[in-house]
Amino acid sequence: MQADWNQTGHLLGLEGCSRNSLISLLDDAAQLLPIAGNQSPGTDEFTGRHVATLFFENSTRTKLSFTMAARRIGAEVLDLNASTSSASKGESLLDTALNIQAMGVDAMIVRCGASGAPRLISDHVSIPVVNAGDGRHEHPTQGLLDALTLRRHFQTEALDGLTIAIVGDIANSRVARSNAHGLTTLGANVVFVGPPALVPREMESLVASNGDDSGTLRIEHDLDAVLGEIDAIMMLRVQFERHDGASIDEHYTQRFGLNPGRAARLRADAPVLHPGPINRGIELDPEVADGPRSLILDQVTCGVAVRMAVLQGLLRGLGR
Amino acid sequence: MQADWNQTGHLLGLEGCSRNSLISLLDDAAQLLPIAGNQSPGTDEFTGRHVATLFFENSTRTKLSFTMAARRIGAEVLDLNASTSSASKGESLLDTALNIQAMGVDAMIVRCGASGAPRLISDHVSIPVVNAGDGRHEHPTQGLLDALTLRRHFQTEALDGLTIAIVGDIANSRVARSNAHGLTTLGANVVFVGPPALVPREMESLVASNGDDSGTLRIEHDLDAVLGEIDAIMMLRVQFERHDGASIDEHYTQRFGLNPGRAARLRADAPVLHPGPINRGIELDPEVADGPRSLILDQVTCGVAVRMAVLQGLLRGLGR
Amino acid sequence: MQADWNQTGHLLGLEGCSRNSLISLLDDAAQLLPIAGNQSPGTDEFTGRHVATLFFENSTRTKLSFTMAARRIGAEVLDLNASTSSASKGESLLDTALNIQAMGVDAMIVRCGASGAPRLISDHVSIPVVNAGDGRHEHPTQGLLDALTLRRHFQTEALDGLTIAIVGDIANSRVARSNAHGLTTLGANVVFVGPPALVPREMESLVASNGDDSGTLRIEHDLDAVLGEIDAIMMLRVQFERHDGASIDEHYTQRFGLNPGRAARLRADAPVLHPGPINRGIELDPEVADGPRSLILDQVTCGVAVRMAVLQGLLRGLGR
Repeated sequence: MQADWNQTGHLLGLEGCSRNSLISLLDDAAQLLPIAGNQSPGTDEFTGRHVATLFFENSTRTKLSFTMAARRIGAEVLDLNASTSSASKGESLLDTALNIQAMGVDAMIVRCGASGAPRLISDHVSIPVVNAGDGRHEHPTQGLLDALTLRRHFQTEALDGLTIAIVGDIANSRVARSNAHGLTTLGANVVFVGPPALVPREMESLVASNGDDSGTLRIEHDLDAVLGEIDAIMMLRVQFERHDGASIDEHYTQRFGLNPGRAARLRADAPVLHPGPINRGIELDPEVADGPRSLILDQVTCGVAVRMAVLQGLLRGLGR
Repeated sequence: MQADWNQTGHLLGLEGCSRNSLISLLDDAAQLLPIAGNQSPGTDEFTGRHVATLFFENSTRTKLSFTMAARRIGAEVLDLNASTSSASKGESLLDTALNIQAMGVDAMIVRCGASGAPRLISDHVSIPVVNAGDGRHEHPTQGLLDALTLRRHFQTEALDGLTIAIVGDIANSRVARSNAHGLTTLGANVVFVGPPALVPREMESLVASNGDDSGTLRIEHDLDAVLGEIDAIMMLRVQFERHDGASIDEHYTQRFGLNPGRAARLRADAPVLHPGPINRGIELDPEVADGPRSLILDQVTCGVAVRMAVLQGLLRGLGR
Repeated sequence: MQADWNQTGHLLGLEGCSRNSLISLLDDAAQLLPIAGNQSPGTDEFTGRHVATLFFENSTRTKLSFTMAARRIGAEVLDLNASTSSASKGESLLDTALNIQAMGVDAMIVRCGASGAPRLISDHVSIPVVNAGDGRHEHPTQGLLDALTLRRHFQTEALDGLTIAIVGDIANSRVARSNAHGLTTLGANVVFVGPPALVPREMESLVASNGDDSGTLRIEHDLDAVLGEIDAIMMLRVQFERHDGASIDEHYTQRFGLNPGRAARLRADAPVLHPGPINRGIELDPEVADGPRSLILDQVTCGVAVRMAVLQGLLRGLGR
């Protein structure tokens, strides 16, 4: 069941990726960080190559991050503006993807509200597909950038023995899913924290099953009870657009928001992560978001580096 | 009345283009196909040149196809996002075009709901204008890509003596108009097929008047009656956005949809074309769209090649 | 109070910029005009550099002008499509800007409905910020392009002693504000013309206070009274989207519109400017807009040149 992350020629999720291949990918990304952070010029390895972005669900940040990543390795981006695309004329996702491939692009990056859409597309095209977030399923480059950010902070190769809390609406979060697979594969112990309605018991099954090296996954409903034992905390964004207000109310911030008081009870060097965009004052207090524990902007730069490594790995596999 | 396709320095329509100049243009496009299909790297002939896309009517596919075409010959694209542009502040099309020209672009590609707008613009700017679809008038690069696709399929230089059915809402279709001119100029005999309301008698006048080499154009209202005699069939997209339901109802698919039963009655090697995006199950059955007769994705790649040839021809005319 | 335009490493406004630094910047822009006008190829000085456009308020023209400017000096543009960006998910402007910076861009161009937003961002990022229009505050590159256009027309180094009328809704116009500072700094005498409600008395304070070289600023409410004494006239766009109809009614065009009759009473060589997009027949008659006095399209080309000079100046300051 364990495989190299790019064995299929695509990156659809972190579930089932082998520990060694993830470490190798993160090593590549770490080497690319000076380029991602604009301290070094990019490469021209993929000059003349075109990467298409098919975002059927809006996400400016993720799209821009992939755009910078592609350009930094010399490739150009062909952006399908999905909100005005043929998709709105009733064309199927698959027809759109096949059309874009027929225009001669070398890879496609797909975001979609429907879980599994990137895999469906990957079954029908002959070029690499990168999942940039599909429904409630996976967002693998987010999981990778979080792992890279943590690896840099703790100056380790993997994340063995570290305890990482992920707090919020776990049930609806592809970020949580990709992190659960990625972080436990790298040896971390993950704690999902949130109200029972948002962290159902069956989510414990998201732990990696990679043998002896894997970390554990457990569920807690009391954030205050775990603050003192965790090595890092990742606050998820409250996605108001997915809730009717029943689950997320004024008590949510009181019980699960990370405010200065709670931050003070974290271990001395425990960092704070957030995938962005932040709802300041809801899940994360501005003082904490902008404070010394915050790795939020490091995550952004790590995101470009990780996406460079992913695109580079997949495009090298193509030959020409 | 016959002229080289680029004699005016623009490509506004296929009406009146000479047979020889179309063949020469298709020869160029055929040579560029390996680049369009991503088997060969592009050229850098037009590095530093800028092609503007002015799409006052949405069409993601056509815009992306022109974008890939421009990049494959080294040029960059400046995209006017018309839905948020000054056009929405009441600026005239012509003022917009003159402004874009004054920014220093080398050519402009115009799509517009108003028939004749590209010609109006071409009368006032000093750079090449390519019509990417204007109202019910013409969509010349679509006509060219269909001709290239057919030429490749039949392995001929022109289309002499071939009978091509074009099926659907002919009256409202610029694709049908450009194909009528282009295909008959190349010697094909075109049959417009559709209900009387959508294929009025006067459309027979769309035939090329190029002398002895031209094909013929006739109108039929019974698709089943012509299936056995045609060499290729082009299904038009039902444009629901242009109909109130009076002309296109449930009987349409029954009478004019291309389903497996009808496809089986085509000649053995008769291919199926569609300009896309497809309404699967309306004008075209999925089994036929994805079946062995379908040239639909070839059309897409031919589209990039044809647009490369058009832009290359027009930009070479500019000198610098 | 007088400083080099780029002393802060940003261009936030023309207020307080020294005469000498503006002349030097316009000299640079004048040298770049052949590139901006597409008579000469661009430079590759900033190849591999990325300029982000953060337009929280739509302006296709200004964005395209900056895009062409960036490309002409070799840089690439990363466009944040603000209408679909995280800003619409409630993210703060500052968080958006910090994220874009963390992706590794070299400069950012900010347009925003909120006066002062570019300055706020510039206080928190370490890369150059260019104000592309903020609320009713400033639009400095518009002021510069108007100055360049006038300088070329009058073939002078500065604008000493010229009288320039700016006509329209001065109170709500950042174009008027930037021009008031820029033109008077360069020695011109500015006359604000419009109805009292749109040109309140206190706007006389917008004059530069640069010592003996500065021009004057005065207010007039009767356009016909000043036509004979001015050297150039700049018509502002009636921004219907900012008015409820109370101030701008049918009398506006009658009293303040520039029609052929009024144009005939201008001095023989007095040119007409307009920042665009024009409301033809409202503030400017088509015959005048397209007539021999019009410098409107020169302004557009000057805009690209000025923006090249600004980006070049700021990016050179970065080193690498």
